[in-house]
Amino acid sequence: MSKTKVKSNYAPFPKPIALLGVMVEGKPNFMNVAWFNRAHMDPNLWMISLNKFHYTVKGIKENKTLSINLPSAELVKKLDYCGLVSGRDVDKSELFTIFYGDSKETPMIKECLVNVELSIDEIIEVKDQYLFVAKVQNIYANAEILTDGEMDLEKYHPILFIKANPEGFYYALGEQIGKAWHVGKALK
Amino acid sequence: MSKTKVKSNYAPFPKPIALLGVMVEGKPNFMNVAWFNRAHMDPNLWMISLNKFHYTVKGIKENKTLSINLPSAELVKKLDYCGLVSGRDVDKSELFTIFYGDSKETPMIKECLVNVELSIDEIIEVKDQYLFVAKVQNIYANAEILTDGEMDLEKYHPILFIKANPEGFYYALGEQIGKAWHVGKALK
Repeated sequence: MSKTKVKSNYAPFPKPIALLGVMVEGKPNFMNVAWFNRAHMDPNLWMISLNKFHYTVKGIKENKTLSINLPSAELVKKLDYCGLVSGRDVDKSELFTIFYGDSKETPMIKECLVNVELSIDEIIEVKDQYLFVAKVQNIYANAEILTDGEMDLEKYHPILFIKANPEGFYYALGEQIGKAWHVGKALK
Repeated sequence: MSKTKVKSNYAPFPKPIALLGVMVEGKPNFMNVAWFNRAHMDPNLWMISLNKFHYTVKGIKENKTLSINLPSAELVKKLDYCGLVSGRDVDKSELFTIFYGDSKETPMIKECLVNVELSIDEIIEVKDQYLFVAKVQNIYANAEILTDGEMDLEKYHPILFIKANPEGFYYALGEQIGKAWHVGKALK
């Protein structure tokens, strides 16, 4: 179990990856985002870190709403494409079938099996980035991934992302290896 | 592709899960943490959201350092156990083999194949939670997961966590499904 120092300029854990949707200059735009997570239980707040230079940031600041659309494995090419080109240069509004929820101004992606509508609660500046603290307003799921009216995690196939040095890779979720607040009881 | 509103009080995406190490009242303590991610490129800052009531919070505020230890699948029981009991009630310092890096006061777990030593950069209050913005000082990896001196993501087996309603489950990482900034080029 000898330990070696490795490069310290990255974050070597799997991250969720999603398509962030927002209206920018009156048009739906989507970028991929991996630096987000939950931040608060009740209210249900999420934290999302975005570099200030992104075209998306302009839209979030103007509208104070955004969507997080969770893609399944079959969307990996379109997901990756959204990370290759900026909405400044390319119109990404035709890439997906767009729908709107309660907030009439937050574009969401029909092809993503799970869509989350959020409103901005707080914007925190951290050097080159904004940490957006956003409140979940609604979660939408496709009928085919529901069991008894609730999302069935075995039925949608989320994508994970790991950045190595200098490359990055997308992964599927693997097998279930234990139930939380349960498997550890054996050690009590 | 019809959409249905589901419960909006959770975060239905896979999260990385890790053991956060810190000295509290002179003793190493570990809690599990799933609400963290990267927040900034250079400097390499991470954001970690913790409820204010945690015993760990006291230690972070006092020491201004912490570690993030990434467990592999074989540690799932000990990981889960750390989420079942508080350091207020149970001494968790004997659960793992502890080592210290450059910072002599940040306990890290030898059995975890990847260990990250961080220093606190900023503490942001968001209702019941603290968002800790922390700077990566060092990353340590076990020799057996290195290829040419760098971490090989295929050789360590990170754990993911998904919270459903009301249960939670641990998952392994699945197969690689694409190379980032690459598979989307086909659509250009």
